[in-house]
Amino acid sequence: MADSKPLFSLDGDPVAAEALLRDVFGIVVDEVIRKGTSASEKVCEWKEPKELKQLLDLELRSQGESQEKILERCRAVIRYSVKTCHPHFFNQLFSGLDPHALAGRIVTESLNTSQYTYEIAPVFVLMEEEVLKKLRELVGWSSGDGVFCPGGSISNMYAVNLARYHRYPDCKRRGLRALPPLALFTSKECHYSIKKGAAFLGLGTDSVRVVKADERGKMIPEDLERQISLAEAEGAVPFLVCATSGTTVLGAFDPLEAIADVCQRHGLWMHVDNLLKHCHGSQASYLFQQDKFYDVALDTGDKVVQCGRRVDCLKLWLMWKAQGGQGLERRVDQAFALARYLVEEIKKREGFVLVMEPEFVNVCFWFVPPSLRGKQESPDYSERLAKVAPILKERMVKEGSMMIGYQPHGTRGNFFRMVVANPALTRADMDFLLNELERLGQDL
Amino acid sequence: MADSKPLFSLDGDPVAAEALLRDVFGIVVDEVIRKGTSASEKVCEWKEPKELKQLLDLELRSQGESQEKILERCRAVIRYSVKTCHPHFFNQLFSGLDPHALAGRIVTESLNTSQYTYEIAPVFVLMEEEVLKKLRELVGWSSGDGVFCPGGSISNMYAVNLARYHRYPDCKRRGLRALPPLALFTSKECHYSIKKGAAFLGLGTDSVRVVKADERGKMIPEDLERQISLAEAEGAVPFLVCATSGTTVLGAFDPLEAIADVCQRHGLWMHVDNLLKHCHGSQASYLFQQDKFYDVALDTGDKVVQCGRRVDCLKLWLMWKAQGGQGLERRVDQAFALARYLVEEIKKREGFVLVMEPEFVNVCFWFVPPSLRGKQESPDYSERLAKVAPILKERMVKEGSMMIGYQPHGTRGNFFRMVVANPALTRADMDFLLNELERLGQDL
Repeated sequence: MADSKPLFSLDGDPVAAEALLRDVFGIVVDEVIRKGTSASEKVCEWKEPKELKQLLDLELRSQGESQEKILERCRAVIRYSVKTCHPHFFNQLFSGLDPHALAGRIVTESLNTSQYTYEIAPVFVLMEEEVLKKLRELVGWSSGDGVFCPGGSISNMYAVNLARYHRYPDCKRRGLRALPPLALFTSKECHYSIKKGAAFLGLGTDSVRVVKADERGKMIPEDLERQISLAEAEGAVPFLVCATSGTTVLGAFDPLEAIADVCQRHGLWMHVDNLLKHCHGSQASYLFQQDKFYDVALDTGDKVVQCGRRVDCLKLWLMWKAQGGQGLERRVDQAFALARYLVEEIKKREGFVLVMEPEFVNVCFWFVPPSLRGKQESPDYSERLAKVAPILKERMVKEGSMMIGYQPHGTRGNFFRMVVANPALTRADMDFLLNELERLGQDL
Repeated sequence: MADSKPLFSLDGDPVAAEALLRDVFGIVVDEVIRKGTSASEKVCEWKEPKELKQLLDLELRSQGESQEKILERCRAVIRYSVKTCHPHFFNQLFSGLDPHALAGRIVTESLNTSQYTYEIAPVFVLMEEEVLKKLRELVGWSSGDGVFCPGGSISNMYAVNLARYHRYPDCKRRGLRALPPLALFTSKECHYSIKKGAAFLGLGTDSVRVVKADERGKMIPEDLERQISLAEAEGAVPFLVCATSGTTVLGAFDPLEAIADVCQRHGLWMHVDNLLKHCHGSQASYLFQQDKFYDVALDTGDKVVQCGRRVDCLKLWLMWKAQGGQGLERRVDQAFALARYLVEEIKKREGFVLVMEPEFVNVCFWFVPPSLRGKQESPDYSERLAKVAPILKERMVKEGSMMIGYQPHGTRGNFFRMVVANPALTRADMDFLLNELERLGQDL
């Protein structure tokens, strides 16, 4: 058999396996943890898709490769990947590298289990419970239920599904055709996953009634009332209001108290509660045997629409243990303080215009290049300004100096959205952001 | 500010971050990669939930903890977690530790990006494309589309949603109430996610028509025909057949050719194709700007119902690169050979009874303890035999010697389901499995 072994099989060779993993970890330390977080290195190494495909030699072949080659491949993957841990990566709502969170993930991945039963995830079933309890406390709840979901979009679908089940438990068995037409309400600033979810769940995107938001992006409760009456007049049954705390672009907070009043008056669902198991349960006998020798209430897998589910709690738990509630609170305070610093700098500098005073850590602003300054009254001003952000984005990405997102919003043309999320950021990074935009746009 | 820092904040201290990660990695090497895969160590360290909660000290407090304490916590998490990489972990469809896959995950986690756009995941957008292309080739397709999903249950929901959209594109906007009642067909052996999915997608579990399976667990095409006619007679519109290749418990393969004939005759969907983007798309402007400076067809995020999506392709890609197609093929061959060896051993040994000849790597069998041998004719035989597996399971878990799943199936009482998945397994591990069951059940 020996000569027919693939070039690089480690099956049943723990010493070689360990050596490989040590080498890969060494590469991760050098290339991600050190260089990736260093302000003097590039955020990204832009390549056109065609060129990148060639550089990576992605093709999967019949013959295996040597350890040396595999290590080279790991280096290439890291080299051409965006460094989301870099202090000048501002492109998404996430950024930075939390060493405790990463440590938690490395442990999770090495243990490689699934969160369905206490039997095969005893530590994580209990840990998830504790982390969720603590998260509920943060929003002021003393009881409740929950699960970690693979992302916010699926969490939003759960909310819609639970609200539907709460109103019409029969839906689970008989489907939506057995129900009157339903209507759910959200503001035009909501995350796009609400509409995606409505389509996926069979409600159809038409069932999503869009409530007006004020100029700051907050849902207008009076318009919510109006939309509810309108839906009822059209024969639909309102069942859910999806409010948002921190919208994706503007970081706006819907007025929850006022919306809650409206929900209460109309008997509408506003939040997820402990109906998970009845709503999602299917009682698969091969996982959830009821003759087990421990309390089967700990087999939480039947609460979710997934079967296998990754362990997500350790990352957060370990970070929380290390930082403590105080440490996390300080991070939040610091992010707000830095966002405030950035806002003041924007106000001071020529060529920068705030879209609005932020209420969260999203800071939205335009960079107005020299040729457009003082031209607000010219008829093509907005059109020309909207073209600036894409040009600057292309320049920064191709240089690898920084990454920040931009988008249009209603009648407002493309503006930049800065999100202060990385706890390693300092005022110098805020200054860099503005200086770099100035440098990149000085000829426009 | 220094004195108000939490006890263990590493923010902005890359040297300390690196030191922590090195220590955690060292623990992973010792406790998981070495001990976790060693046959002489325990598979699990069973504790009652109450005791485990105390041992882990799960509570999240206001004060942060020292590095030493955090490392101790990592050790405890690993200690009380099930070692799915252990050669005697047979409890799930997955097991073993593939060093290349784990290396891929460590790289993925350290890069911590999301799969939505080429902009922030250039390597992984191209890599996913290549891996999916290669996977399609394995099933004989020369074109198509696809995405990695967070698990098989959500993949199954995608299949149902795509089939529905294919038949009635209007459903996305107008919902299921605008459609006639729909019917989908699957065998009684299908994974429970089909029913969960039907409920989640608003079709209702009643829309799932259960087709009879033969005694080996294979869907009976003649009954599928019958069920389709029945559904039509009841006014429902058949739109989808969910066939299974390798059922969860028995590892049965539905007769795909015969089912495909039925689907073709009735115009029913049997597979997922390239409709993903039209079906799931919502065109969020803040992610999927159309004025980007590269081909926006590479921003694959709008194909899925998620927004952020973890990178799953690197793990498989790196393993494939290292092993080559040949190496992976050899692993499959070896798993089949070992399953065959186990079957022959079961036939030879007193006290072991096959549920059926397996056609896959699932081997289902009863262990008949001494007191029940030769008593097949006694009226309470089945009832008493069904009680054996839970007792043995409790004993093995409490000793930590092995883990294997059991379940009832139709009129068949609890039997063990062995899945040969871990490529590091040898004949000695098969012998161990049978010897251990004999040892644990000798007094029954």
